[in-house]
Amino acid sequence: MDKIKIFAPATVANVSCAFDILGFALESVGDEMIISKLAEKKITISLEEGSNLPLAPEKNVAGVVAQAMLDKANANFGIHIHIDKRIKPGSGIGSSAASSAGTAYALNKLLGNIFTDTELIEFAMLGEALASGIPHADNVAPAILGGFALARSTHPLDVIKIPAPQELYCTVIHPQIEVKTENSRKILKKNILLKNAVSQWGNIAGLIAGLYRNDYDLIGRSLDDKIVEPVRSILIPLFSELKQAFLKAGALGGGISGSGPSVFALSKGKNRAQKVADAMNDVYAKTGVDYDIHLSKINEQGVIELK
Amino acid sequence: MDKIKIFAPATVANVSCAFDILGFALESVGDEMIISKLAEKKITISLEEGSNLPLAPEKNVAGVVAQAMLDKANANFGIHIHIDKRIKPGSGIGSSAASSAGTAYALNKLLGNIFTDTELIEFAMLGEALASGIPHADNVAPAILGGFALARSTHPLDVIKIPAPQELYCTVIHPQIEVKTENSRKILKKNILLKNAVSQWGNIAGLIAGLYRNDYDLIGRSLDDKIVEPVRSILIPLFSELKQAFLKAGALGGGISGSGPSVFALSKGKNRAQKVADAMNDVYAKTGVDYDIHLSKINEQGVIELK
Repeated sequence: MDKIKIFAPATVANVSCAFDILGFALESVGDEMIISKLAEKKITISLEEGSNLPLAPEKNVAGVVAQAMLDKANANFGIHIHIDKRIKPGSGIGSSAASSAGTAYALNKLLGNIFTDTELIEFAMLGEALASGIPHADNVAPAILGGFALARSTHPLDVIKIPAPQELYCTVIHPQIEVKTENSRKILKKNILLKNAVSQWGNIAGLIAGLYRNDYDLIGRSLDDKIVEPVRSILIPLFSELKQAFLKAGALGGGISGSGPSVFALSKGKNRAQKVADAMNDVYAKTGVDYDIHLSKINEQGVIELK
Repeated sequence: MDKIKIFAPATVANVSCAFDILGFALESVGDEMIISKLAEKKITISLEEGSNLPLAPEKNVAGVVAQAMLDKANANFGIHIHIDKRIKPGSGIGSSAASSAGTAYALNKLLGNIFTDTELIEFAMLGEALASGIPHADNVAPAILGGFALARSTHPLDVIKIPAPQELYCTVIHPQIEVKTENSRKILKKNILLKNAVSQWGNIAGLIAGLYRNDYDLIGRSLDDKIVEPVRSILIPLFSELKQAFLKAGALGGGISGSGPSVFALSKGKNRAQKVADAMNDVYAKTGVDYDIHLSKINEQGVIELK
C-alpha cells in the first residue's frame, strides 16, 4: 500500500462531569486526509484550499506524529500528507486530535499495521502536546477507537473503549470566537471541595453505568458538572441560555466541548437532536456571532479508510 | 404472613477510589433477624445472647426503621424484632446497615410488599442516620439490592445496581480496635487538589467499566485511592503492611472498608482470596490485636428470606 485516504472524526472531550478523562467521536464531522509514500525520507504537507495551518512538519501536528512513527519504525521512505481540514481549528471539537489520530491510523496502514491502538494513541498524543502543550488522550483516544473512550490514566496510558447506546446523538454549536485551551486551563481552581468532588464522582460512575446499561435517563441525570463548567462557561457567550434551551428542547444533558467554545448536548434519537439544534440556533441567531451547528450520531468506528 | 426470618448481609462501602458512592454486599457474613407481628401497636426488640445493643426502639436502628415504616403504612399492628447480631458493631462492614436493611426488607414483606426498593433504602437510611449522624446509602443500598450499588446522588436518592463479575471474592480483616465513623470523617480534608480528583474520577470510571466488562485487571488497576486512604489509613494499625501483603498475595486491590477499622481486598477466584486471607493473617498474627478474617463471594441477592 502506497497511498491511503481516511476520514478522521471530530471528538467531544471533557464530557460534563468527566473532565479530562472521557471523550467521544462524531460521525458526520471530521477531516479527510490522503497520505502517500515518498521515495525520499522526508515529510511534506499540503492543504486543501481555504485552510491555514503550518506546512513545516515540525510545526504541524500531523507532521510531528508522522515523524515520530517513521523514526520508531525506522522506515526507509517518506510521506506526503494532504489535509482537507473540515474541523475548524480552535473549535473545541478535536481539530488537532483529528489530524493527529488520522495521521497515526493512516501511516500505520502504510507501515503494515505494526503498532497497537494504544501505541497509535500515544503517537497521536504527541500532536496534542504540540497543539496545546499537554499530551492529553481524551480526544485522540475516541478519534482512534470510536465510541466513548475513557482515559483512566495518562502515565502510564490506560484507555478503555466504552460502548455508546445505539440511539445516542450529539448536537454541537461552535460559536466562532477564540478560546485558547491554555487560558481555559489557567482559570481553573487548583483546589476543589471534597464534597463537590464526591458529587462529581457519583455522576461519573452514573455516566459510565448509563452507557453500559443503555439507560438514557441515567446518562442525562449524570451529565452534571459542578466543578469545571461553572468556571469555564464564563468564557462562552450565552452559555447558560444555550443550556437552558437545549434542556428545554429535551436533550439528556450536555456542557462545554473540550475547553470550548463549542457546546454539546446529547439526545436520544435524531429527531430530538434536531429539535436541540433548532433551539441552539434560536439562541445564537439573535447575536452577531458567527456559528456552526453540527448534528451527529456517536461514531463507533473512529478513523476509517475511505475507498 | 405474620413472621419472617431473614439474612441481612455485611457490606463494604467506600470501595477505594469510590468514597461515599459505592458499596457491595458479602455472602457469607451477615445478621439473622426474625420479625413477627404483634397485635398491639408497639415495637419490642430482643437480642440473641452475647450481643449488646440498645433495646429501646428509638435508640436501636432496627426500631427506628420499623417505626418509620409502620407510621408511613399506617399499620394497625406492632412488631417484635429478634436480632442475631453476627456482624460486630463498629467493624466497618455495615453492622448498622445490616440491621436497618434487614428490618426494611422483612417488615415490607409483613406489610404486603407495599414499598419499592428505593423506598426501602430510604427507610434503612434512617437507621444509618441514627448510627452515624449521616443518612448515607452506600451500605444499605447494596445490603438491599445485592451486588455493587452505586449511590449516584443522596438528595434526591438515585441508586443503581452494578453487576459483579462471577469470580469476584472479597477478603476482609477486622482488627478489633475502635474507629468511630465520626472521627474518621473529621480527619478528612475539606479541600482536595483538582489533579488528584481527576485521577480519582479516572479510577472510578475504570472501576465501573471493569465491573461491567468483567475485566478483573481493570478493576484492580482502578482500586487506587489518592485522597481518602492516605488520610484515614493512619487510624488502622499496620495498614500499609496489610496492603503490601494482600497485593503480594495476588489480590486485585483493596482498601479501607467503610470508615475502618476493617480492611478489604478483592480477588479473582476463591483460592486467591484464601491466599489473601492467609497473608492478612500473617501480618496480624504477630500483633497483640484481636481480629477476624472473613472470606466471601460478592452477594448478588442482598437481604434474603430464610425458610
